[in-house]
Amino acid sequence: MRVVETFAAARALSGGSVGLVPTMGFLHEGHISLVRAAEHASDTAVVTLFVNPLQFEDQSDLDRYPRDIERDAALIEDAGADILVVPALHEMFPHYPTRPAVTVAVERITEGMEGEHRSGHFAGVATIVAKLFAGLRPDRAWFGRKDAQQFVVVSRLATDLSFPVTVTGGATVREADGLALSSRNVFLDHDDRVAAVSVSRGLFAAAAAAGEGERSADVLEGVVAAEIEAAGGAVDYVTLASASDCSALDSLDRSAFLAVAARVGQVRLIDNVWLEPDGSADRGIRLTGPSILYGGD
Amino acid sequence: MRVVETFAAARALSGGSVGLVPTMGFLHEGHISLVRAAEHASDTAVVTLFVNPLQFEDQSDLDRYPRDIERDAALIEDAGADILVVPALHEMFPHYPTRPAVTVAVERITEGMEGEHRSGHFAGVATIVAKLFAGLRPDRAWFGRKDAQQFVVVSRLATDLSFPVTVTGGATVREADGLALSSRNVFLDHDDRVAAVSVSRGLFAAAAAAGEGERSADVLEGVVAAEIEAAGGAVDYVTLASASDCSALDSLDRSAFLAVAARVGQVRLIDNVWLEPDGSADRGIRLTGPSILYGGD
Repeated sequence: MRVVETFAAARALSGGSVGLVPTMGFLHEGHISLVRAAEHASDTAVVTLFVNPLQFEDQSDLDRYPRDIERDAALIEDAGADILVVPALHEMFPHYPTRPAVTVAVERITEGMEGEHRSGHFAGVATIVAKLFAGLRPDRAWFGRKDAQQFVVVSRLATDLSFPVTVTGGATVREADGLALSSRNVFLDHDDRVAAVSVSRGLFAAAAAAGEGERSADVLEGVVAAEIEAAGGAVDYVTLASASDCSALDSLDRSAFLAVAARVGQVRLIDNVWLEPDGSADRGIRLTGPSILYGGD
Repeated sequence: MRVVETFAAARALSGGSVGLVPTMGFLHEGHISLVRAAEHASDTAVVTLFVNPLQFEDQSDLDRYPRDIERDAALIEDAGADILVVPALHEMFPHYPTRPAVTVAVERITEGMEGEHRSGHFAGVATIVAKLFAGLRPDRAWFGRKDAQQFVVVSRLATDLSFPVTVTGGATVREADGLALSSRNVFLDHDDRVAAVSVSRGLFAAAAAAGEGERSADVLEGVVAAEIEAAGGAVDYVTLASASDCSALDSLDRSAFLAVAARVGQVRLIDNVWLEPDGSADRGIRLTGPSILYGGD
């Protein structure tokens, strides 16, 4: 694996079909599964590691975002990547901290859920992803479906800005007890770690209800909220949203995801299950043992 | 020359270095000079012809924008282009008239001049140009320096969104009497055509003053405005602006352009000269005879 600091260097090393996995580092099995998929499907598998200051609503959240580049690089190489791009902040933003004059804007699909709770977050994500698509010219890019709204935003970015990039979603990877892997899980203390399982437990209960015929968004959302609140968590939102444009649905009458954000202790967690109108669900995949990476207990 | 309707078809036909000239059609010698430059410098010269609905502030201006695709295609082929891309509206905007969810935003550099007078114009330009850069993957792209602010916006777009595209400015092409070529010149009646020359005459007078040592923006701008108003034109603005970020300058102390917008009869004209702090100027180039294309009398 070659480690480079510029897009130009990465392009010069790329040949054949190019698969891209953008990350903010501090990797877990969810990221690694995307790298493996990119390696399997592409002639050149490119991973980027950049903590994007544009997508944090406040500086303290950016500052405390966990980082361990050497460990990440070893994991990425083990997963089969050909190129790791670790751009310096000033490669990405020559005028930082002055904002770039030209950025990417997202409307409508970011009005609810994470877009409502994290002002400017998706414009920051979309701007960085556009830069990665522009600078690295991938044919295909992988994003985790755990960040459901982000996955829809990035898919629309490719279409609306005419990038010839196929955006592919990776299944959410979970601990054996159901907790979705997240770089933020390291901040959960023991009691919060126990309570955090209520998030996935609620989603799985709702998916089971959908499988038994329940179609009402209110009912499905209520199942999730009740489970989390019973465990002492605080729900930010539970929303049944269209898989194509993130609009809130009244009933499960098209491809959708049931998304939740909740605070458990000091940690804000997001998770989701993807639901089809026939009641089938994509709950992600579970590790059979404890996570070998950060995020386990 | 091959004429195609999709970016994918154009990419499939492109080889080696790709030069791009985006146009809205109804071409004059200014556009043709860009196509010739692209043909000279590139293995594959690609011209696009698309009237961008996003950059018109009202539907009537869009509706009356002149169109003559067959004539344009013949001129583009004569100038040596390899590929002409004429995308259908629904290739560019699958959901038209619904706005795309993801667009390009521009701030700061579009606060004055055309950006102030034409709300949303540059966001529309930037969104389309981003799509052309993303979909056609050019190595180099040519834009006329007559649209000075647009040229700065597109240059910043390439940098800020990490497109590996070298943006090159083409000199303004003028009638023998100085009038800058414009697709809108066909709307000038005989009297207005005479009065319209005051725009370039004012700019050349200001450039001459700069050559003689004048550095005050107020004075240089005043020279232009006086010439136009004496001819019966109405000045929208005259601004000495930084060539790097379009900010208004108090004095000619860095690379700059002196830009003007004025109404002559029913037609709004824009023009500029590029000035250096040593007093040298780029006034563009003049045709030695009447324009062979639209825009002459």
